[in-house]
Amino acid sequence: MVQRHPEVTEPAPVAGHPPPLPTGTGGELLAVHLQAWATEFLRALRTVREQPDTAPRALRRSARRIGGLLHTFRPLLDRDWADGLRGELAWLSTTLAREHACADRLDRLLTALTRLSGTPEAPAAVRPSDRTPPDGHTAAGALTLGTAKAGALLERRLTLARTRAHSAALGALGSSRFHGVADRVAVLASEVPLTPGAVRQDLGPLAADAAARLTDAVAALPMPRTPYPSDGLTQDAPWHHVRLLLRLHRCTRDVLYGDGTGDPRLAAAGRALDRHRDAAEAAADAASAARTPRIAPATAYALGVLTADQRHEVEAARYEFCQLWRTGPVSTP
Amino acid sequence: MVQRHPEVTEPAPVAGHPPPLPTGTGGELLAVHLQAWATEFLRALRTVREQPDTAPRALRRSARRIGGLLHTFRPLLDRDWADGLRGELAWLSTTLAREHACADRLDRLLTALTRLSGTPEAPAAVRPSDRTPPDGHTAAGALTLGTAKAGALLERRLTLARTRAHSAALGALGSSRFHGVADRVAVLASEVPLTPGAVRQDLGPLAADAAARLTDAVAALPMPRTPYPSDGLTQDAPWHHVRLLLRLHRCTRDVLYGDGTGDPRLAAAGRALDRHRDAAEAAADAASAARTPRIAPATAYALGVLTADQRHEVEAARYEFCQLWRTGPVSTP
Repeated sequence: MVQRHPEVTEPAPVAGHPPPLPTGTGGELLAVHLQAWATEFLRALRTVREQPDTAPRALRRSARRIGGLLHTFRPLLDRDWADGLRGELAWLSTTLAREHACADRLDRLLTALTRLSGTPEAPAAVRPSDRTPPDGHTAAGALTLGTAKAGALLERRLTLARTRAHSAALGALGSSRFHGVADRVAVLASEVPLTPGAVRQDLGPLAADAAARLTDAVAALPMPRTPYPSDGLTQDAPWHHVRLLLRLHRCTRDVLYGDGTGDPRLAAAGRALDRHRDAAEAAADAASAARTPRIAPATAYALGVLTADQRHEVEAARYEFCQLWRTGPVSTP
Repeated sequence: MVQRHPEVTEPAPVAGHPPPLPTGTGGELLAVHLQAWATEFLRALRTVREQPDTAPRALRRSARRIGGLLHTFRPLLDRDWADGLRGELAWLSTTLAREHACADRLDRLLTALTRLSGTPEAPAAVRPSDRTPPDGHTAAGALTLGTAKAGALLERRLTLARTRAHSAALGALGSSRFHGVADRVAVLASEVPLTPGAVRQDLGPLAADAAARLTDAVAALPMPRTPYPSDGLTQDAPWHHVRLLLRLHRCTRDVLYGDGTGDPRLAAAGRALDRHRDAAEAAADAASAARTPRIAPATAYALGVLTADQRHEVEAARYEFCQLWRTGPVSTP
């Protein structure tokens, strides 16, 4: 369909990834990528009963990739079709993501609780203090008491949420809404509704727009100039937004240069923002669990420590992202 | 008693500080400093009834200074006398410090609670999540509920501790033990029990020993190479120890160069370690308050968040100290 550029080194195929695609410019290239991800979507769909662990992940990934390309290169595509499919793919990938997200958050929270229960406190401070006489409990001891209960509470809550998410995902995969999405993706695999004139149109300007949206959003972030900012009160949402823009930018680069997921600095920045999102949601989970009626004070205390710990991770992830971002200008098309 | 060195610029006298002293070397110089601080101690002692706020602070400061010099320059002094007086001065300054420490910690904890009750949580996260349906409480809201109770609990506990410390300080100032210390300091103000031969002995090697002890102790610290260390489990005690060694080093420099309290980098490093100590003790207070029987879960949760926040401050102070320390070799005599 499009000419291969033999001078461009193609990335080695990765297990589970679609084969490397030709690189170059033009709406034709976009069509090749959309078709490749649509084919990947259909392949994952065929194995969803046999591989209930990996297939939904592959479905989600291809749905996200297709959605990202529809977003970035919207002007080259039939607008109503692109917007409609993008919305359906977002619904699908969100629905499929929840189960794993619950498992990952539970894992993150239990790991943090284990780490925190080893935190030393200051009973051996050099300066004698005025606190109440020792009662045989260290702070770490109190935390350990509450840690077990907090861990059990989080496990109950997140396992329940995971079970619900699993049912919802199964329900979604059996729904007529999903079959509608699959039909549209099947059509996409064979024919991409490009606008007239889009076939030979340069993708560069639209990719540059995506990069500019990312750069602008990062510039608007209240970047921590120092670690441990004293306020720490920035909203999470702008950071989550940058995370999505970075993903779009990386997908775009993948189309143009075949390296979008290969640039190690962009990949590391993406991981920092993933960690930011995960920690923010884990903190919200811990805070939410602390509102369970009739829990013991020790449980609530451990959940408070855990919430603050995860908010600390949020700040650490922001700092890491900013350090990565400052090491050089982001590679733009 | 010793010759002034007119070529050395003397620091400008600071209100409440003893007048600038001659600089140079030799046991005579040590004697001049010990006598000056002993005189300052006696001056503060005379005003302790009229100035109950400032005089104990001045007493404490001169007691700490004298104790530091007795420690660093012990080989030049009558050993039994120096060790005995040093122990008594440590008792006195510890006893006098407690009241202010309680007030400072309460202030630190209430300030942190106020700051934390404004912490945003992640209800507006981009990724829809599986947590239980919103019940009208945000995490910040839950924290605010508990914050007021936690603040009231800390206020009760630390006010009680402060009152006890105040009584203990008053008791100490009226005790025969204190009168014994005051008598010994009065003798010191007029005559310093130097060893034979100490009068003209160079102070440099002993000051260098003090600097080496500091440098070695800092080198043995598990310095955080990056902010947000993932373990964060280092014991506090080595840091508290470095804090004391740094104070001794600065007092020593003050004797030799008259600049011990003037070097801004050492002063900043000292403040970072003060902040480390304060945050570690405040965290222990918050953890201790969380063990109060029959507190509400929301109170315990807020105390958990507060404890972790103060441990976060501990780490921030360590990082700050390490950054200061790395900006150049510590100035040594």
